[in-house]
Amino acid sequence: MQHTVTFTHNDKRSSISVPTGTMLTEAAQLAGIEIGQPCGGQGRCGRCAVLVTEGDARRRSTLRLSRSDVDEGYALACQTVVEGDVSILVPPQEKIERRLTTDRVVAEVTVPVDYDYDQHQTIHRVYLELTPPSMEDQTDDWARLQTALRIQAGIPEVLCSLHLLQTLGKPLREGEWNVTAVVEKNLEFPERPVRLIEVFPGRVDDYSPIWGCAIDIGTTTVSLWLVDLVSGQVKAQVAEYNGQIARGEDVISRIIYSGKAGGEQEMRQRVLDTINGLLETACKRVKAKPEDVMKATIAGNSTMIHLLLGIPASSIRLSPFITAVNHPPVMIAKEVGINIHHEGRVDCLPGVASYVGADITAGVLSSGLETSENVSLFIDVGTNGEIVLGNRDWLVTCACSAGPAFEGAGVANGMRATQGAIEEVWINSDSLEPTYRVIGGGKPKGICGSGLIALLSEAFLTGVIDKAGNVNLMAATSRVREGAHGGEYVLVWGAESESGEDIVITRVDVDNLLRAKAAIYAGFSILADTVGVPLEMTDRVLVGGSFGKYINVEKAVQIGLLPDMDWSRFEFLGNTSVKGAYAALLDWRMRDRITEIAKRMTYVELSADNSFYDAFTSALFLPHTDMSRFPSVAEALAKSN
Amino acid sequence: MQHTVTFTHNDKRSSISVPTGTMLTEAAQLAGIEIGQPCGGQGRCGRCAVLVTEGDARRRSTLRLSRSDVDEGYALACQTVVEGDVSILVPPQEKIERRLTTDRVVAEVTVPVDYDYDQHQTIHRVYLELTPPSMEDQTDDWARLQTALRIQAGIPEVLCSLHLLQTLGKPLREGEWNVTAVVEKNLEFPERPVRLIEVFPGRVDDYSPIWGCAIDIGTTTVSLWLVDLVSGQVKAQVAEYNGQIARGEDVISRIIYSGKAGGEQEMRQRVLDTINGLLETACKRVKAKPEDVMKATIAGNSTMIHLLLGIPASSIRLSPFITAVNHPPVMIAKEVGINIHHEGRVDCLPGVASYVGADITAGVLSSGLETSENVSLFIDVGTNGEIVLGNRDWLVTCACSAGPAFEGAGVANGMRATQGAIEEVWINSDSLEPTYRVIGGGKPKGICGSGLIALLSEAFLTGVIDKAGNVNLMAATSRVREGAHGGEYVLVWGAESESGEDIVITRVDVDNLLRAKAAIYAGFSILADTVGVPLEMTDRVLVGGSFGKYINVEKAVQIGLLPDMDWSRFEFLGNTSVKGAYAALLDWRMRDRITEIAKRMTYVELSADNSFYDAFTSALFLPHTDMSRFPSVAEALAKSN
Repeated sequence: MQHTVTFTHNDKRSSISVPTGTMLTEAAQLAGIEIGQPCGGQGRCGRCAVLVTEGDARRRSTLRLSRSDVDEGYALACQTVVEGDVSILVPPQEKIERRLTTDRVVAEVTVPVDYDYDQHQTIHRVYLELTPPSMEDQTDDWARLQTALRIQAGIPEVLCSLHLLQTLGKPLREGEWNVTAVVEKNLEFPERPVRLIEVFPGRVDDYSPIWGCAIDIGTTTVSLWLVDLVSGQVKAQVAEYNGQIARGEDVISRIIYSGKAGGEQEMRQRVLDTINGLLETACKRVKAKPEDVMKATIAGNSTMIHLLLGIPASSIRLSPFITAVNHPPVMIAKEVGINIHHEGRVDCLPGVASYVGADITAGVLSSGLETSENVSLFIDVGTNGEIVLGNRDWLVTCACSAGPAFEGAGVANGMRATQGAIEEVWINSDSLEPTYRVIGGGKPKGICGSGLIALLSEAFLTGVIDKAGNVNLMAATSRVREGAHGGEYVLVWGAESESGEDIVITRVDVDNLLRAKAAIYAGFSILADTVGVPLEMTDRVLVGGSFGKYINVEKAVQIGLLPDMDWSRFEFLGNTSVKGAYAALLDWRMRDRITEIAKRMTYVELSADNSFYDAFTSALFLPHTDMSRFPSVAEALAKSN
Repeated sequence: MQHTVTFTHNDKRSSISVPTGTMLTEAAQLAGIEIGQPCGGQGRCGRCAVLVTEGDARRRSTLRLSRSDVDEGYALACQTVVEGDVSILVPPQEKIERRLTTDRVVAEVTVPVDYDYDQHQTIHRVYLELTPPSMEDQTDDWARLQTALRIQAGIPEVLCSLHLLQTLGKPLREGEWNVTAVVEKNLEFPERPVRLIEVFPGRVDDYSPIWGCAIDIGTTTVSLWLVDLVSGQVKAQVAEYNGQIARGEDVISRIIYSGKAGGEQEMRQRVLDTINGLLETACKRVKAKPEDVMKATIAGNSTMIHLLLGIPASSIRLSPFITAVNHPPVMIAKEVGINIHHEGRVDCLPGVASYVGADITAGVLSSGLETSENVSLFIDVGTNGEIVLGNRDWLVTCACSAGPAFEGAGVANGMRATQGAIEEVWINSDSLEPTYRVIGGGKPKGICGSGLIALLSEAFLTGVIDKAGNVNLMAATSRVREGAHGGEYVLVWGAESESGEDIVITRVDVDNLLRAKAAIYAGFSILADTVGVPLEMTDRVLVGGSFGKYINVEKAVQIGLLPDMDWSRFEFLGNTSVKGAYAALLDWRMRDRITEIAKRMTYVELSADNSFYDAFTSALFLPHTDMSRFPSVAEALAKSN
């Protein structure tokens, strides 16, 4: 059966008739339209994204597309089959590039459908009409406000800080005794006193925003979402490198630095500066001021939370690896040093242990793992790999120090996933010549985590490196050579790179990457062993972390970082930590559930167990000593050889 | 019947035989021993105090002696009658002088007999033995402490500040997981969380002191008592002028000053400096450090409390005279700026209105007025006169601005009751020559409040000034003359004064004093009228304030400051405010009762009422327009004329 495919490209229209089952890329080629396919039509790079404006087309894979992309009509030309008459808009390449890069910051967020500001939000605004004082009624300002709160808002008891008492008189008089109070209710214990946060003169429009923010303090990146607590909508999303990076790439080096004279205070100030800068940026976008923000809910690993709060983190690093606090109390912003409203509430979400922090409890919440009947595996790949296995009945967790290799550190030409980083690599199995994609286009500066995974996988599949990670110096390409640190492969010649120097991956880099992936693989396989649930039995593999969002699942499996399963069972959730913080910020029940999750999670200390070392050693190969664990990789190898 | 009186004086012993009923002063004279009687043997100056070491003597009056003085055996020689064989120690004059002056600071305090640290004190020390952490038990420090508090101390829920979390790890490890926690319990609401104040390594001796302090912030003087909360004993008493005096003598001028740019902060810092200085002094006496003090309970008038807390006080001064807060919440010392333990609790006692503050509610508690069946009148004479009338069933209160005349301000040669102030005056009715007593001995510098009252009374009774306060220029003495401000009386010639200038009282001074005493008299008489209780019906007149402790009741009645009643119905209680703060510091039930007192008190706004003005005008005479209200004065006048 023949179908008409109409392409619109650069404002020109051209039609072609093709049979059922024709791939859109083939149809385009027939119509004389060039659609870039850097990944060779494997549906992995997202560069061939097109918009289906009319008619139907079957999407085989949408790996690089978000749900909202698909809703808008986007499809990957290399993965989409014609099954009827269709109209296709081919967007200019620049637009696709931009989408792929800005996507790194802006996640899609939908307000939970059942969100009810009145029922779920703890921050409330109440309009009060006070009786003006007179010689007959000389009640003091504070008691007058308390009376109005009691009678007009049903709030029997309210707490107030000294600072608020110092400033209370002004809004009462400016508003001529009509004021809008902002209070924090205790929805979990409604009989407990409410806390007064601010008093504004006059009436504030009920529908105007009450600002809150959800923050994820990553070791590498801090993300902040600015949220209107009334509508629940995320109004701005910003992210920035954690200013602490200058003093150490991973948590261990930061703890060591913070132990030096003045180090604790410096570390605290650095992350506060990052957060306050983000707050400023986010508020500017919505024409608000940081002091308009009434609440901040914060997720982050245990070290990040300790350093933020100025709590000594040294015991985290030393056996028996104890945190000072896993469940910090809710604090006042002024005390913490975050420049939201000085009386605003800062809620640091609870963690489980030294290496399983609030980023994971929040992540587990937002992943939905803890409500599912089936067993799922949750992996947060970052500088530390945290792993959770479980379902609605039980949760076990562990942490393994992957090291910063996947974040581009400890690798000769490694870099973070910013402008100029090679994020995707393909190696032609015949010529051993590479193709790559650079974030933001332009000349490459280095290789970021997803690029390293891709490079490792491609080099392995094409025989450039062997199972043990040795560079095959006999390979038929000038790109393979003996370098200062053993064998290396030249990904980019100096002539094409930003710096003019070759961009290479060395034997040492490969070792670091192998150790990182082996730690994570060993982590979840030991965890599965501990509870006696074979990995194959897990229903879903939920991958969290911004980093996780950009890794190519096929290549991650090929190097043995992720278990070999059907791709449909993988879900890449992006920054689950900030998502969990957002859920907790909006809804006290979600906040409560994170506490429950933290309590429910059984922490398995890997370093206490010899079996971890064995599993780690076995995983120090590509993809693994035991190839039977990676049947799809065995198959791919068989094909390429 | 004859009795032997044995005197010991300057280590010499002499005996004399005298008949029953001989005054000790007469016996001493017969024995050749000189006992100073500046007041002429009227029992008013206290200079003739002697110690009865053996035998019995009947004390007719003990006006200048405290209860503990009498318990120790002190007697006024001019008021004590021989009724058996007695041995008398005549102390050196310096010792009496010193006693009279230091007495101004050191009050006698007995711990309430029913004080039970466990039952009544909110600050508690609990010794805890924590399970040390291990690889098998990686509980965080804070949860570990919470568990110990729950299991070993029965404390189910505890709150902790960020600062404490920041420092928690150290004592736990220093004490090898045995620690002593200091907590504040909520004895009123035992189901509410306890607050953690400090954690010390190891075990602290159960009987070692837990320090607290009771503070009275007077407009003129700040008093601080350092208390061991375990035993309840007052271990040090210190007092100092309120540093705010430099910026205004009375509350109104302080409010005005605090309204200027930077004024609020300066006023706050000034009183904080005073308090922190006192704290330092008191702690040194007991070899403790200010940061060892865990709790401060503070009384003071509403303006003083506002200025201490940095709360704008301007509305106190302007109609309709509203305070920002009458019942401040309990605060953390660091927030308030008092240098006790930074997490120590600062409890500012509740007041009633702009001019009836916590000094009065605390005063009412310590006076016992609110538990008595009979109606009593409580008068706190200070820069403001606050008056309470009532019994256990009802309490009414009012305030009248007496002005600072009784504190020596607004009077030509007025001064505060310090070294060099004339505090007592007698005028010979024939010669019109004065005798006076100077605080600390030495040459007089000026006249303090009690001296002014005495001078006014004596001048009136001897005809130097008339009923209306006019100086009788026809009086037969060169001490009466026309000065720059009308008629004046020279109390001290320049040759005898410290400055070399004459010390005088002028017509203008008299007017200021008349207005002050008229305001107070009008205050309590209007209050009595308001509730329909004639003044004569009041069982007791309780006079509070350090100032009140030194005024001569006879002379205060003679000028019409106090109502004309039998002397036995007057009680001079000293600083009732600091006493009330002490009671509240020790016992949460007393603290609770002060809140109840504040709620029970009905405030009568005098300025809202024309009858106050009428009563005030009628009282602008010596002693009053209506002499029938002062029968004893009429009698004294009749005698002297």
